[in-house]
This record gives sequence, structure tokens and C-alpha cells, in this order.
Amino acid sequence: MTAVRPEPLGLLEGLASTRAIRRFRPDPIPEADLATILWHATRAPSGSNRQPTRFVVLRDGPAARAAKAALGRSFRAGWAEKAAAEQYGQGSGADPGSPKARQVIAMQRFVDRFEDIPAVVLACNLRHRAPHPTEGASVYPACQNLLLAARALGYGGVMTTWHGDVEDELRPLLGIPDDVGIAATIPLGRPEGSHGPVRRRPLAEVVFDDRWDEPAAWAVDPEGTRFAGGPRRHSR
Amino acid sequence: MTAVRPEPLGLLEGLASTRAIRRFRPDPIPEADLATILWHATRAPSGSNRQPTRFVVLRDGPAARAAKAALGRSFRAGWAEKAAAEQYGQGSGADPGSPKARQVIAMQRFVDRFEDIPAVVLACNLRHRAPHPTEGASVYPACQNLLLAARALGYGGVMTTWHGDVEDELRPLLGIPDDVGIAATIPLGRPEGSHGPVRRRPLAEVVFDDRWDEPAAWAVDPEGTRFAGGPRRHSR
Repeated sequence: MTAVRPEPLGLLEGLASTRAIRRFRPDPIPEADLATILWHATRAPSGSNRQPTRFVVLRDGPAARAAKAALGRSFRAGWAEKAAAEQYGQGSGADPGSPKARQVIAMQRFVDRFEDIPAVVLACNLRHRAPHPTEGASVYPACQNLLLAARALGYGGVMTTWHGDVEDELRPLLGIPDDVGIAATIPLGRPEGSHGPVRRRPLAEVVFDDRWDEPAAWAVDPEGTRFAGGPRRHSR
Repeated sequence: MTAVRPEPLGLLEGLASTRAIRRFRPDPIPEADLATILWHATRAPSGSNRQPTRFVVLRDGPAARAAKAALGRSFRAGWAEKAAAEQYGQGSGADPGSPKARQVIAMQRFVDRFEDIPAVVLACNLRHRAPHPTEGASVYPACQNLLLAARALGYGGVMTTWHGDVEDELRPLLGIPDDVGIAATIPLGRPEGSHGPVRRRPLAEVVFDDRWDEPAAWAVDPEGTRFAGGPRRHSR
């Protein structure tokens, strides 16, 4: 139905290789590609198949430009705060060649050029009950499908929640009702430059067998797996 | 379609065809397959790559059996409550051949046989701050990857949050700390029998261009798309 010819990228390969992309070429995304990406996003599951996710696509319409400007400010403030709080410029970050210093440069570039991102998708939650920590079970699977479908077509993106500081400004700008949650802000575009591999904690740190904190002897990473975030005690 | 087929399954095809599976063959899932499924789950993104998701795999260990029994009770009570509240046996549901009546039979069978499901994965959230409606942005993408990876290997599953009623019982049984959220309960196994296609609302109902409620002329479903949940007004 959706892939007439064999796809160059397999399902497992796609899951393994989709990473956050924050550097974009300025080219607009053709509408047919946006439709394909969003259609696959909407194949994701939701509670009772209620499908509460609504996607507001911000490109270069009048409302979108104003919203991107507000978001740009929010992202720049959010990054400035995070960089200061987590002392990104200290320790290994003081060495300009270090991964941490490169991350600082990449993040700064991302937020500085926010307004130029070809498409920013707001994933909104048409809630049927009061806000709740598990409500995202019906929204974020669609966001992940969106990022995976983007990858399949050669695009990249990143899931963020840095709209929080300007939500009150975005609602009237975009006409988003007060009882609709803004669940994620997802910049999308063609990746620019090279991007590193997906890096995660060792599998044995995050998988338990039978009980919390019980090691799963079989939870072994495939050869060549790249790590980040570990090793660290998995419980607190 | 959920027909078991060998690799390779394309990325877009996998996104388009992964649906909730609630009927399982009793065969255990080989540990190597569990590891592959969970490894791909953990490639999903999370805020600051913090990777807060922990997976407790319930198979037939002593704690798992007790937890599955508690979950089975919770699922049966949850379904009984939902079926009564939403009057599943009324209207078209009174006709035994109707889709609604078949859904009732399938759901009843699912909850009645909960304890026999080969593997039930609890996706837990090692929170770094107070519970919040967007915290799932760092957990549910991994759950969706898990379901997609399962599909790639010929397994199926369903994302649920029906553990809510027995959380207080599960925590001591499984040793889950009080400040860890149980985000989802995901039954997994080989699909049994045939399963219908993925059905969703028409894309134009859920995609807006530039502003909330502004139609996106380009948001067109591919030919052959099957629908459920619409047509209905997309805003309230």
C-alpha cells in the first residue's frame, strides 16, 4: 500500500539508525513528502484507537512565521538555561575538540537558526480527560513514527518539548484551544553535514528479568553498538 | 496485515502495517529475539539522551507469574468496566456478526487468557522530576520502537496502561521503587489467527497547515487506506 518498490531501508535498520537531527538544509519539504511522513505517523496506536493527536505544520505561512519566531526565542532561552545549569562549557567541554564542546556548538547553531527550519510540526493532544503522566501513550508513538518515516524519506528531525515557555503565546497565534495539550515540537528537514551514530546505555543496564533490578543475562548488545549514558547504576 | 513474514520488511511498510495484537500463540519468545526487540526499543530518543526507560520482562519466573495474575485481574476488571460504560453489547454490538461484537469477543479472550501471554513487558520511567504530562516523550517512543521491532521479527503486541488498578500490588511484587512510574504494560507474542488492517481517521482530519483547524489540502490518504474513528469534527 505504501511502498510499491522494495525499500532501501529495512524496518530494524531504520529503528537502529534514526537519530536526532538538528542541522538542516534550508530546502522546503515537498507537500507529498509531508503527507507521507504524517500518514505513517498516524498509523501509530492510541488508547481505544481514539487517535487524539493533531499535527499543526508550521512552514512559512503568516501564523507559522510568528510561531517559529516565538519558538526560536523559547529554544534559545531553554538552551542558554540548560547550558548554564549543566555547565556545558566546563570540564571536558573546555577543550574545543571534545565531544561536549562540539555538542555545545551544534546546539547553539540549532537554536540560532530555528526560524530557518523548513518545517516544524507541533504534535497536539486533543485530551479526553484531565492531563495525566500516561496520556503521552496515545501521542508520542505517533511522534516516533513521524521521525522514523522522515528518516525513510531521507529527512531528519528531533523531538523536543521546549515550547513550554511560549505556550501561552503560541495558543492565540495558532488558534490552539486551551484544553488541547502541546505534546511536542518537532523540527524537520534534510540533514546537513554528517551526524554521529545512535549511542545508548548498555542494554543490560535498562532491561530486567522477572523483577526490578534483576539482571537479564540475555540482554546483550550486538557487536558494534555505541554507548552513551553509561555505565551507571541502573537503580537509585 | 500481521502475517508473519521473514525479514526484510521495509521501514515504511513496517510503520504502516504494525497493529495491536491481542491474540497470541503460547510459544515462549526466544531470549535472543527478546534482546533484539529490546535493543531496538532502546534506540529511541529521550530528552537529553537521559534514557529513563527501564524494561521489566515478565515471563514465567516466580515474580512474573504473580505479577501476571495481578495484571490479569486488572485487565479483566478494566475491560468489564469499559464494556459496560461504553455499552459494547448494545446497538450494532447486539448483532453477533458485527465488527463491534467481534471486538467484544476478541477483548474478552485477550483478558481471560492474560496469564498465558508469553512475555509481558513493563515499561517503567526512572523519573528525574515530578510526574508530568509530557514525561512520556522520553518513554513511549521506546515502547513504539519495541512494538515495531517485534513486528519485524514476526511478533505482535499491544500498548496498554491497564496496570493502573494494581500498581500498588505490582510494586512490592516486582520491587519497583515508589518514584518509578509504570508507563505501559506491553503483552508480546506470536500472533494467532488473522488480524485486520490498521484503520485510522482520514489524514485531513488530523493534520492542520499553518494554524489549528486550517485544512491541509495536501494531507491526502494513499489509495487503499482503511478508516476508523472518522469522519468527525476534528476540533471541539
